[in-house]
Order: sequence, then C-alpha cells, then structure tokens
Amino acid sequence: MKENPLDHIMQPKSVAFLGASNSIMTIGTSHMLNLVRGGYKGKIYPVHPKEDTVLGIKAYRSIMDLPDPADLAVMVIPKHLIAQTLEECGRKGVKRAVIITSGFREIGSEEGERLQDLIDNVAKRYGIRYLGPNCMGVINTHLSFNITWFPYKDIPGSIGLISQSGSYVTQTLSYLRANGIRISQAISVGNQANIDMVDCLDYLGNDPYTKVIAIYMEDIKGPKEFLNVCRHIVPKKPVVAMFAGETEEGARACRSHTAAISGRGEIYRGFLRQAGIIIADTFYRLFDFSLALSEQPLPKGRNMAILTNSGGPATTMANECGKCNLSVPVFDPETQKRLKEMIPQTGIALNPVDLTLNYDVELLYIKLPHIILNLPYIDGLLFYGIFGPIHIREKMEMGGDLVDIPMKPIETLIKKSCQAFTKIPKEFNKPVICASFFGREDEAVRIIQDGGIPVYSSPERAVRAMLSLCEYREIRERFVEKMT
Amino acid sequence: MKENPLDHIMQPKSVAFLGASNSIMTIGTSHMLNLVRGGYKGKIYPVHPKEDTVLGIKAYRSIMDLPDPADLAVMVIPKHLIAQTLEECGRKGVKRAVIITSGFREIGSEEGERLQDLIDNVAKRYGIRYLGPNCMGVINTHLSFNITWFPYKDIPGSIGLISQSGSYVTQTLSYLRANGIRISQAISVGNQANIDMVDCLDYLGNDPYTKVIAIYMEDIKGPKEFLNVCRHIVPKKPVVAMFAGETEEGARACRSHTAAISGRGEIYRGFLRQAGIIIADTFYRLFDFSLALSEQPLPKGRNMAILTNSGGPATTMANECGKCNLSVPVFDPETQKRLKEMIPQTGIALNPVDLTLNYDVELLYIKLPHIILNLPYIDGLLFYGIFGPIHIREKMEMGGDLVDIPMKPIETLIKKSCQAFTKIPKEFNKPVICASFFGREDEAVRIIQDGGIPVYSSPERAVRAMLSLCEYREIRERFVEKMT
Repeated sequence: MKENPLDHIMQPKSVAFLGASNSIMTIGTSHMLNLVRGGYKGKIYPVHPKEDTVLGIKAYRSIMDLPDPADLAVMVIPKHLIAQTLEECGRKGVKRAVIITSGFREIGSEEGERLQDLIDNVAKRYGIRYLGPNCMGVINTHLSFNITWFPYKDIPGSIGLISQSGSYVTQTLSYLRANGIRISQAISVGNQANIDMVDCLDYLGNDPYTKVIAIYMEDIKGPKEFLNVCRHIVPKKPVVAMFAGETEEGARACRSHTAAISGRGEIYRGFLRQAGIIIADTFYRLFDFSLALSEQPLPKGRNMAILTNSGGPATTMANECGKCNLSVPVFDPETQKRLKEMIPQTGIALNPVDLTLNYDVELLYIKLPHIILNLPYIDGLLFYGIFGPIHIREKMEMGGDLVDIPMKPIETLIKKSCQAFTKIPKEFNKPVICASFFGREDEAVRIIQDGGIPVYSSPERAVRAMLSLCEYREIRERFVEKMT
Repeated sequence: MKENPLDHIMQPKSVAFLGASNSIMTIGTSHMLNLVRGGYKGKIYPVHPKEDTVLGIKAYRSIMDLPDPADLAVMVIPKHLIAQTLEECGRKGVKRAVIITSGFREIGSEEGERLQDLIDNVAKRYGIRYLGPNCMGVINTHLSFNITWFPYKDIPGSIGLISQSGSYVTQTLSYLRANGIRISQAISVGNQANIDMVDCLDYLGNDPYTKVIAIYMEDIKGPKEFLNVCRHIVPKKPVVAMFAGETEEGARACRSHTAAISGRGEIYRGFLRQAGIIIADTFYRLFDFSLALSEQPLPKGRNMAILTNSGGPATTMANECGKCNLSVPVFDPETQKRLKEMIPQTGIALNPVDLTLNYDVELLYIKLPHIILNLPYIDGLLFYGIFGPIHIREKMEMGGDLVDIPMKPIETLIKKSCQAFTKIPKEFNKPVICASFFGREDEAVRIIQDGGIPVYSSPERAVRAMLSLCEYREIRERFVEKMT
C-alpha cells in the first residue's frame, strides 16, 4: 500500500510539541495536556525556549536539539515563527507537522498570504507534509493519541471524522459521548494548505478501525482527485458529508472561515451524489447517519417494521417513513393473527405493532422482534419502548416504605432482555434502530447503545438514520454495477 | 370568563383516585404516587374495594362513600368498570373525570364501541365532562399537580402541552429537563370522546402561566370550532403543532393509535396555516419552537446577526439561515471597522462575527452583542460560543500539580458575564438564541438557559427556532390586520 502523508501524523512514534508551557493559560498547554495525560505511548519532546521541563517532561530549546528527528512536530506558536520552525524541522529531518496556529490565508490579508507562501516554500524544499494551518489537531482514539484542545473520554469507536471546522471534531466530543457515538480518528484539516481532504479520505479509507467516514466540508479542493478517491472507498465503506456552503449566506461564511470557495448548493449536491457520498443536511444527521452506518447491517430493501409500546412515537416514525419513501407494509393476515395472540387486547398488530404501554420485556425485546424480522418482506426494524430499571427505582424511592418490590430480579430481567435484543441485527442480518426520549441516564439505553444498536432522541431521527442505511446500500449497488 | 370543563380537571381542590393500590406493580399506583408525592396541596381520596389506606392515605370503598363530592375522579380501573363508576360519580355529584384506562374506540372492536357508548350515556345523563379514555392524565406544574405515570422534576414553566399521544407529555419529561424546556400544564387528550382539543386550546389560551401552546395531533375533530378558538388565541399567544398523520403511513398508524381519521398532508398543512398555527415537522422542533416562543421577544424582521468564537458552527448557522429565508446581512463598513478593532487579528467582522477561539467573555457575551443588537437593521442574534468553567476545571484536574490558576475569579467572571448576557434580549427587545455542543453539565449553559435564553444542541436547530419567532410575528400581524 502506498504511504499516506497522514500515516506518521495519525500514528507517530514520537512527537515534538511546540507552544506548550507550564501555564494553563497558554492554549498550547491545553493541547499538550491531552497528549501527555491521554494515554499516548510514544515519545514526547516538548520544545520551549526557556523551560527545562514542560508538564513534567524534559524540554528542548529547539527542534535542532532533539535527540532524534521526531515523527511529527505539533505547532501552537505565533504565526511569524512557523516558517523558521518548519525550516528547522527540515534540517533536523522531521518530515510531518500539524500547524494549529491561525492567521494565514483564511483572514484574507496580504500578510496572511505572504506567511503562507513562506511556509509552502520551506515545506517544498524539505519535502515536509503538514496539516493546517488554522486547525485544531487530530485524534487517534485507538492509540489514545490526541493533540486537540478537548479530551476524548470515551472508548475507541469506528467513525472517522474529517472536518474543515475544528469545533466539529473537538467541541462536539461531549455531545457525541452523551449520544453513544464513538470515533476512531478525527482530523481537523484547517486551511488544507498542504494535506487536504483527499489525503484524509485516502488515509481513513484504508484504516481498519474506521468503518464510516464523516466529513464536515465547506468546499472541495481538487474535485477530480476527490471523485477518484471516493470511487475506491465507497464500495467498501460509507462516506457521509455535511456541506455548509450550500446557500449564499453559508458560502460567504465559508469564505471567511477557511478561505473556502463554496459553490451553489445544487452543483455540490450533484457532485457529492456522483461521488457516492451520503448527504447529511444538518450537523446532527452527520453523526446520526455515521452511527447507524458504523453499527448496523444494511437493509435489503425499504420495507420497515415498527415495534413499540407507545402509539405516539410509533405513529411519528410511520409518518416520517412516509416522508422519506420508506414503506411500512401491513403484515400478512397470518402474522397479524399470530402477533395479536401474543400482545395485550388493547394492542395493535398491523404494523406498527403497538403493545400499548405494556412492558413485558421478553415479548418486547425478544419474541416480537424475532417474529417480525423473520418475515421475508421486512427489511429492518424501528423500535420505540426502551425503559430501564431507573424509572421503577425512582418510583420505589417516591413510595418509600409504602411500596416494595424486589428490584434485583427486575433489573436482571431487563438487562438480559436488552442484551439479547442487541444480538438480533446480526442474527437476522437486518438493521434495528431505536428512538427513546430517555438518554444514557437510563441503564437500558446504555446497554442497547453499547451493544451496537443506535438509539436516537427522536422518532424522526431514528427513521432518517434507517434511510441512510438504505441509501448506502443503493449507492453501493450502483457503484459495484459500474465497476463490473 | 366562561367556565371551561378543564378548570376543575387542571386545578382541582380535591381528587378521588380509583385504581391505585399499595403495590407498585399496579399502574394506577405509579400515577397516584406522583399525585401524593409531587407536592399537590388539595385533598386526595383513594377509592379501593379492600384496602383501608392507599399509599398512606385513608381509602374509601366507593365513590359513594366519599366525605364530599371530589372536584375530579381519576380512573385507572378495568374498562368494564368505567361506566358504572361514572354512574356513581354522577350520583355523588362528581362532575369531572380523567379516564386513563384504554380499550375503547381506538382498538376498533365492537366491544370498544359499546363500552364507549355506555360511558357517553352516563356522562350525558349527569352532565359529567371527562378527559380520555386512553390517555395518560394531566400535569399542572404550577400547582404541583400530576396524575400521569411520570414525575415532573423541574421548576414550573410556561409551555402548555396538548397531546394525542400520552408519551409526548410523559416520557418526554426527562428529555425536556435535559434541554432546559419547562412546561406549565400538560394534557393527554386520549380518544377525545368528551373533552377535545378545542376545549384544551380554550383552557390553555386563558391560562396566565401558559405563554405558548404546543400540540401533538393526529387529527382534528370539529375543524370549525378549532379555527374559531385559534382565531382568539393566536393574536395573544403562539400555538405550535406537530401533525403525525401527514403521510399514508402516518395516517394509518394514527387510525390504530387514537381512532383518528387523518387526511392528506397538504390539506392539513393548509388548515393549520389558516388557523395561524406554527407547524413543527418533527418532535424536537415542536419543543424547540415552543421554548423560543415562550422566552424570547419577537424579531421585527428577518435580518439576523451571528456571533461566535468558532467558525464551523457559525457557518452552519449562516447556511441554515439561507435555507429558511433568514438574511445574514454584511455589516456596514463603520460597524465592521469598529468590531474589527475589538476582536483578535484573526477574527472576522463581516457577519458572522467570529472571534476565532478567543474567549474574552466580556467581549463575547456583553460588548459585542450590545454593538450588534444596537444596529437598527439587525432583528435578532444567533450565538455560538458558550464555554463554562467546567472545561477549565477539567484541564486543571488533568494537569494536577503541574498547572495551577485561581479558578474562583474565572468562575465569577464567566458567571457574571453569562448572567449579563441573559438580560440582553429584554434590553433591546430583540431575540437571542444560542447553539452549543455542550449540555447542562456545563454551568454556563445552565445559567444562560435558566436565564431565559434558549440553547440548542445544534446550530441548525437554533436557526429554525429563530425562524419560528419570525413566523409567529408574521402570523400575528396577518391576524391583527384581519381583525381591524
């Protein structure tokens, strides 16, 4: 496999860090803290003009003083020092850099252009490949490697992020954690002066830990190369993108933000479709879709079943299915009869199947999903009805000594049923996607999310995530057809 | 003012509760626990055929045995007992009931119809008005009155809910709390066999605590009455509705859920528009819009300013503005110059105003919003940049003894700035709406939300909420014009 300039950036054996000090008020210090305290196993060489140690680690006066050429230099130093520091990297043999510093092409000034040109010259002369400038760094969760400002506090995941906005790969981390969404690697590309999105796509396309690539984009540099790299990736893993330069207002903001030349929405949409990319038209859909695509098998068609113990959310799911061309076929009479016998008298067995506030967990999580997904004409299951022991415990606490039931057997039963539920998608090779108004404070939500079934906070978001699975299957078929 | 049948249901001085026991496994017990332990100050009369006390309160053998006719009877008893119990209510002089029990018209059986007819006869005979059947009860947060299954654990708010789905006014409560959304009253209308949505609208329209009415609907009974009541409410308070019967799939699910006869989407949309209702096309928008409408002043036009310290979310907001016909006008040269002098050199002052990861809290929360909202051509402010002390504390903890800064002054400064920020909408009589990827675990988010500025978890949702304010202003103008 051809070397990618990001190999040593995302998986460095040693890192020189420029711009951290022992004061938390220095932005670089916060970046380096994640590197030092995040669990990274490689060597760290702080570079500081005065300090002997930085964050407890022996510091060097300059890049030239390093004991060996580090795999990567990370720079959070004033912009007018970047070019000369990069020159030192070149002389020392440091071949990769991440330039977090901003104030270059994106601010639209002559000085910004001039500084950018200086860096480009040095990089070309020494064959240095760098990420940025004006970026927030990178994260490789599988190596506990994080040089961004924000800590990654979750277990490693399988969503690879590429972003023209630093915030989308850093400030979003707590949002992702709260929603059970985990990443493999994250790359803030900044101005893409040297390494660009195409390099990132190529890199993540070959990363075994990355099952889905999610992109926040404000423009596309090198559309031909972009199409080409997508053509190789899309048949093996899905790419989801959110494009923020679709409207006049968005395009103008993009220009200021990352010097991006955004075009008209329709042209971009057409281009992304041609590239086989699944379009997410909002921030949350970018992550909603990526989560589903990283965890669930693809549906063979667009016929969905809906299972619930609450009519409203199920009706909302059915309605949203109608809005986005997913079918909710009425079950055959025999199946209806069979289901009807199993559910409460007030229940509905047409599709949606509604247990009407019944909470027979074995029926809800195991028996009914098995019957439903066994139907050859059903391609996937949408589910509302997660309800963990927390709600019953809450009642017990309210009741005090007035009420008492043994919680342990209930907890065990719910836990076991939820765990069994998470095995179902693999068993039938059909996707299951949930909506729940309860979050991860609910143990049942946690078990199901952590077991690999996405749980969204709204019925509509669950349906749209299911749609993204259908879309990817259709895109992949189209791509594979073309290739054969 | 004309009496509304809901007056004594939502503000009862005494409640007879039928269907609770001392076992938490009885559904009614969970409903009654909220009544008993939720802080309700009125009298509670449990009715139970065998128990002497229920949840610690003296119980009565039947309605007939009550010491006085309760304002309200709540029934969570088997469906075939409802009619005779209602008969007893009539004889005793109990004039209002909430029938939570299901198994009537909504299950589509002859027996369901028959039982419904029986109830209707009794109610007519005695002049009893009742809510349900097949509902989840009601909540009046200002009286700590809650007869639903789920506890309300937040402070009272100003959003009044009417829902054809019980889950939307109960299972959603923890979602609402997590998002800083508070309700005044909530009514689960169930099958609307007697009291219907029009009664609810009329009731909440006159409730001084309710500033916005939010409806989850599956159909409209009595369109003429519905239009009429809306015509009275809409000029004084906004009504937001989510309609789940828009598509074929949704309409079929509605029929099963609440026996609703849903029509075609376009017809309903037209009807709702005619009624002056703001249409929310997803579950989360119903609450997003209601939150903004309950807290923020209305913008005079559609010209928005965007203020941020992070380019990506601001660009996303600008793009979403473009998608929904909100303008993001470039500031006049003088203002640009003035802003440019105040923000970092890497910053942008065109609109969006981007401080580029600067965190001068006085600049961000106070000085810049003042300058921007002072511009006569700016009608509202969209804001991304909330960042509380939690993130700095987290860094301090990571750094351990290696880093140290005095947290107290930072915390005080952020707190004061955020509090000052929450005064701005009133000061300028212009709306401010925020997006943040951080949730209520962040103190700054809490201060701002609790101070009356909505904070949404995505840039797009913030923009759509702002749009709902514009829409209501336009609707109100249209309505007032018609009336004069």
